[in-house]
Amino acid sequence: MKAAVTTKLFSPPTALKSGGKISNYFSSVPRLHSSNFSQIYSSIHLNSVKSIKKAQVAMSSMSATYKPEEARVPPAIPLPKPPITKFKIGLCQFLVASDKERNIARARKAIEEAAQQGAQLVLLPEIWNSPYSNDCFPLYAEDINAGGSASPSTAMLSELSQRLKITIVGGSIPERSGDKIFNTCCVFGADGTIKGKHRKIHLFDIDIPGKMTFMESKTLTAGESPTIVDTDVGRIGIGICYDIRFQELAAIYAARGAHLLCYPGAFNMTTGPLHWELLQRARAADCQLYVATCSPARDSTANYVAWGHSTLVGPFGEILATAEHEEVTVVAEVDYSFIEQRRTNLPFQKQRRGDLYQLVDVQRLNSVG
Amino acid sequence: MKAAVTTKLFSPPTALKSGGKISNYFSSVPRLHSSNFSQIYSSIHLNSVKSIKKAQVAMSSMSATYKPEEARVPPAIPLPKPPITKFKIGLCQFLVASDKERNIARARKAIEEAAQQGAQLVLLPEIWNSPYSNDCFPLYAEDINAGGSASPSTAMLSELSQRLKITIVGGSIPERSGDKIFNTCCVFGADGTIKGKHRKIHLFDIDIPGKMTFMESKTLTAGESPTIVDTDVGRIGIGICYDIRFQELAAIYAARGAHLLCYPGAFNMTTGPLHWELLQRARAADCQLYVATCSPARDSTANYVAWGHSTLVGPFGEILATAEHEEVTVVAEVDYSFIEQRRTNLPFQKQRRGDLYQLVDVQRLNSVG
Repeated sequence: MKAAVTTKLFSPPTALKSGGKISNYFSSVPRLHSSNFSQIYSSIHLNSVKSIKKAQVAMSSMSATYKPEEARVPPAIPLPKPPITKFKIGLCQFLVASDKERNIARARKAIEEAAQQGAQLVLLPEIWNSPYSNDCFPLYAEDINAGGSASPSTAMLSELSQRLKITIVGGSIPERSGDKIFNTCCVFGADGTIKGKHRKIHLFDIDIPGKMTFMESKTLTAGESPTIVDTDVGRIGIGICYDIRFQELAAIYAARGAHLLCYPGAFNMTTGPLHWELLQRARAADCQLYVATCSPARDSTANYVAWGHSTLVGPFGEILATAEHEEVTVVAEVDYSFIEQRRTNLPFQKQRRGDLYQLVDVQRLNSVG
Repeated sequence: MKAAVTTKLFSPPTALKSGGKISNYFSSVPRLHSSNFSQIYSSIHLNSVKSIKKAQVAMSSMSATYKPEEARVPPAIPLPKPPITKFKIGLCQFLVASDKERNIARARKAIEEAAQQGAQLVLLPEIWNSPYSNDCFPLYAEDINAGGSASPSTAMLSELSQRLKITIVGGSIPERSGDKIFNTCCVFGADGTIKGKHRKIHLFDIDIPGKMTFMESKTLTAGESPTIVDTDVGRIGIGICYDIRFQELAAIYAARGAHLLCYPGAFNMTTGPLHWELLQRARAADCQLYVATCSPARDSTANYVAWGHSTLVGPFGEILATAEHEEVTVVAEVDYSFIEQRRTNLPFQKQRRGDLYQLVDVQRLNSVG
């Protein structure tokens, strides 16, 4: 840090002409009422920090101004000890046809095969009991809450999860609830019960002229809540397809202590090659947890052609197992001990700048007393 | 939506055994004081929404509960019209040695070559005037604010930017300010003045045993502020290397209307192959803007070996131009018209769920009156 040492290394060239004037973008913005905002905002933190007993208050040793514990509002929950560290996951990438009975039979067969290969967690594709089209969603929709014969697809999943003693993240099906239709994923525990139900919260409305146009919002209603479930194979956050585009959802799941994010999806032939792998790897690497995805196999004769490429990604964003586009069940090992290891390698939790940005989990903020 | 149609498609299998019980993770959390939090939080939004004249209040047509305009706090600023739509960018990937004068001469030559090839914006690598080591940072540090002979590296950049009439994102150098040392990037306008100065806000403290251990915080102090600058070639958000790991920084730059993010970086031989390309593409695709990076060329004999691979990424996360690891200046075209096009294709801005998550730009929240 001695200037004398520095000057030994070079001869000073032309003098700096700027005179050191800095015209940063926000330097001229008046700081009116800032104390008012700060006070209100601080009171939120104070209350939420006090009230969350298990909150991780990660103290940074690097700078007095770092406030990593405030980068997540409410503060991040420490990663819970999972009931199991190592287990096999099965990603059932099968062909979806217009015959619903056949789809249910295929799902059943794929799940049984995955279980035979040792999978304790099985993931199905998005909209696996119906063709992916706005015309079909109302026709194939089931009343999941009524159960039984009103929902043969989930009845099959319930029966299988109980019989095979596995956890099933049941892809998604069109769900009828009153006069609305949702794109819904049920998570079944090894006892056959529904442990969580996620309704796709970001509807797939996309318009890439000449390549891909689809408007789910024509027939579907968006879900109202993120979904995270404690299962026999760890704490799992659920997103459906387009939900994966919104990094905030993954980040709030990570802050709720998720070990694994599961995204049933059906990316298409335009967005698949562009973004499917990228998004999975980004969510895993940024959140330092496992990400599993499951797509239908590709049917080139269908109106909506799925990209395939169901994948398991580890907490460094590394692809651990993946498929091409054909019918296949990928069985691969998850090892949660890598999560802690990656978080030790790259301690983002202690490095985030809560003094500069904060991600608010609105539902959790409103839930904690 | 008629049940009669549905039942034609299949025969109901086994009855659902769960009875529809849902045990979602947060369903049992008591909702104490939620109205209190909501009221306080709403008042922030109300005030900030009112006070930001240029705030984009993106209305969603999809659901009454979608509050996309609240997903960014304060609300996102609409993308400003850039002063120029198409231009060439130059990424100067050169070898950094222990001789500071030589480093300055190399930077000068690379910038002149980029300008000769038509680059109107030139980007330099992280820590380009010094070896990348905690031992060297104090020795090579310059007093940028004092300027002139106290900062020969930035003096050269000022002189060149004025003479060549180009914008320079000047990579980074160790900066001495009082008794502190920062890792600092200066942005020079075509008039030679410093238009913005970014001090790396996330210090590179990493420990992957046997592969890569480095603790910048041993010698460096973290910066206190995100940096976004209006230049002749658009609104540019600056991050330095490890800053790219924090998606929140990129997201708040996007919400401040950035066209381009520039990350001088020096990823190493462990994190480079793992994450360098992934992170650039993820930030670009998630924020739907351009991302440019610049690394030193690889010197396999150095203590810290840089990965290289300086890259320009477009707003679909697509790699537009990239380098291997040798000394090279990449010159490629940026076309900002693609930003609007991608945002029309995939209208994230209207699809975000401000009712479920909110990213707070703390500095901007405190700056607006």
